[in-house]
Amino acid sequence: MGGRALVQWEQNRENAPASLEVDLYAGGPAPTRGLDEVTFYQVPYSPSTQGVDESTEVITRMPNLEVVQLVSAGYEQVVPLLPDHVTLCNGRGLHDASTAEHALALMLAAQRDLPRWAVDQRDHRWGSVPQRSLADCRVLIVGYGSIGAAVERRVLPFETSVTRVASRARPDEDVHGVDELHGLLPHADVVVIVTPLTEGTRGLFGTREFELLHDDALVVNVGRGPVVDTDALLAQDGRVRAALDVTDPEPLPVDHPLWDAPGVHITPHVAGGAASFYPRARTFMDAQLARWAAGEPLANVVRPGT
Amino acid sequence: MGGRALVQWEQNRENAPASLEVDLYAGGPAPTRGLDEVTFYQVPYSPSTQGVDESTEVITRMPNLEVVQLVSAGYEQVVPLLPDHVTLCNGRGLHDASTAEHALALMLAAQRDLPRWAVDQRDHRWGSVPQRSLADCRVLIVGYGSIGAAVERRVLPFETSVTRVASRARPDEDVHGVDELHGLLPHADVVVIVTPLTEGTRGLFGTREFELLHDDALVVNVGRGPVVDTDALLAQDGRVRAALDVTDPEPLPVDHPLWDAPGVHITPHVAGGAASFYPRARTFMDAQLARWAAGEPLANVVRPGT
Repeated sequence: MGGRALVQWEQNRENAPASLEVDLYAGGPAPTRGLDEVTFYQVPYSPSTQGVDESTEVITRMPNLEVVQLVSAGYEQVVPLLPDHVTLCNGRGLHDASTAEHALALMLAAQRDLPRWAVDQRDHRWGSVPQRSLADCRVLIVGYGSIGAAVERRVLPFETSVTRVASRARPDEDVHGVDELHGLLPHADVVVIVTPLTEGTRGLFGTREFELLHDDALVVNVGRGPVVDTDALLAQDGRVRAALDVTDPEPLPVDHPLWDAPGVHITPHVAGGAASFYPRARTFMDAQLARWAAGEPLANVVRPGT
Repeated sequence: MGGRALVQWEQNRENAPASLEVDLYAGGPAPTRGLDEVTFYQVPYSPSTQGVDESTEVITRMPNLEVVQLVSAGYEQVVPLLPDHVTLCNGRGLHDASTAEHALALMLAAQRDLPRWAVDQRDHRWGSVPQRSLADCRVLIVGYGSIGAAVERRVLPFETSVTRVASRARPDEDVHGVDELHGLLPHADVVVIVTPLTEGTRGLFGTREFELLHDDALVVNVGRGPVVDTDALLAQDGRVRAALDVTDPEPLPVDHPLWDAPGVHITPHVAGGAASFYPRARTFMDAQLARWAAGEPLANVVRPGT
């Protein structure tokens, strides 16, 4: 394949095969010239962009487009803008290290009282309280895909045990189906939610699920906010703890009760986009452009063009 | 061996061999009767006790003592009270899981801005900033013993690399000697200090060592406070970051400048005594009492009786 590729990072322009014409567009006001020639478009990534902005809408002004490449995992927002013949690829795997790392950061922070120490430091207060451990915890990973496996690799050396749950059981991989969730929850000390948002996962954690957890259990959500029913969590009133990188609603309004809910720790949707994402994304884009130029099958196709 | 053992935990009394008479003493006012008969004394552990208190001084009123058992790693404070014939055992290994876990908690908190998010949550503020990663970091472990190895097992799955340093080089284990430290520091993104305090490690991290680190490098100290020269750290003024569970002085006085030093995160000496310590300590004590009753060699002898 040839044509003109529009990508975000200079490294990818430098490393692109000579048969490709490659230009840069890193977000902001969309280019107005040359859109007719673009055949491969990498939608620029910004950690602060959520939903559809100009860098996404410009897709509709690219009549010869063949491939849209996202470096995010989510892609639902782009599908309505895509003609049927355009192939859509996403950034599956590129955020795994960053997201799994943040899940561990949240688990350890909650178990080892780091938010308390941060506030104590601001107040110049030195005084300890008995500390929970992550060691010996039984960790239930809900959404056992590539991020779930990345969480598992990081959490097992902490002398924990892991139980795997996915939408469908995969007995050969020791993965339970989500229909077994209620039987598993009473045996979990830490639940890590890494599911995407689907009609099957929306509100997956509601009143019944929280009630099945033992006192002082911890729910970590680095998936999508609406997977946890916020009102059901608030009703726990600290009986079950939570560490959330995603919330519902999001961003959380300044007067929302979740900010001050007992036992709830919040980070502002920063799990996936840490520094380690960028070299992984640029390396992926180098390889993807090489595949495109050579006419080889693309990686991470989530919707093939017809 | 027989005689009377004085231990801290009910589990150990229940599980002790029938040939041993075992009584409980969990700290506080020392027992006044029966001290003549005590042959094995486990000094009760409390996370808040530092230095010598009544539970240590009571050793001098036990004329038939044969073994003093600590469940802490440090034992220097007990040696001056011990007659030469008494064997001293410590708690080496019992705090490894807790300490290594806290080292990871501090690393992840510093890399992923958790103290910032804790304060933002208190202020109901939702807003992200670019995040560092632990992934891709080159981690230098200074003090590669059992805790250092426990840190290594936990940090490697985060897609990091590790370099090992100990007081003496052990080339067959890929451990560098501390005399190579200056050559290694410029290549470290994260330095984890897990050394005990000795005349060789006091002030190990001073002006020269901080200067050899690159901008924004992170120093984590879960060893002993005086291993890091506090004035040298303060002089960095945020150029190098630090996450400290131990400080010099300790506890940190309310008006000490370290509380507000830029890029410095502090927890109040809570690394080693988290919940996971207790089951490990009780399991060790069961086995140690069984060895004592059977006349077998004791574990963790740090000073044999003569």
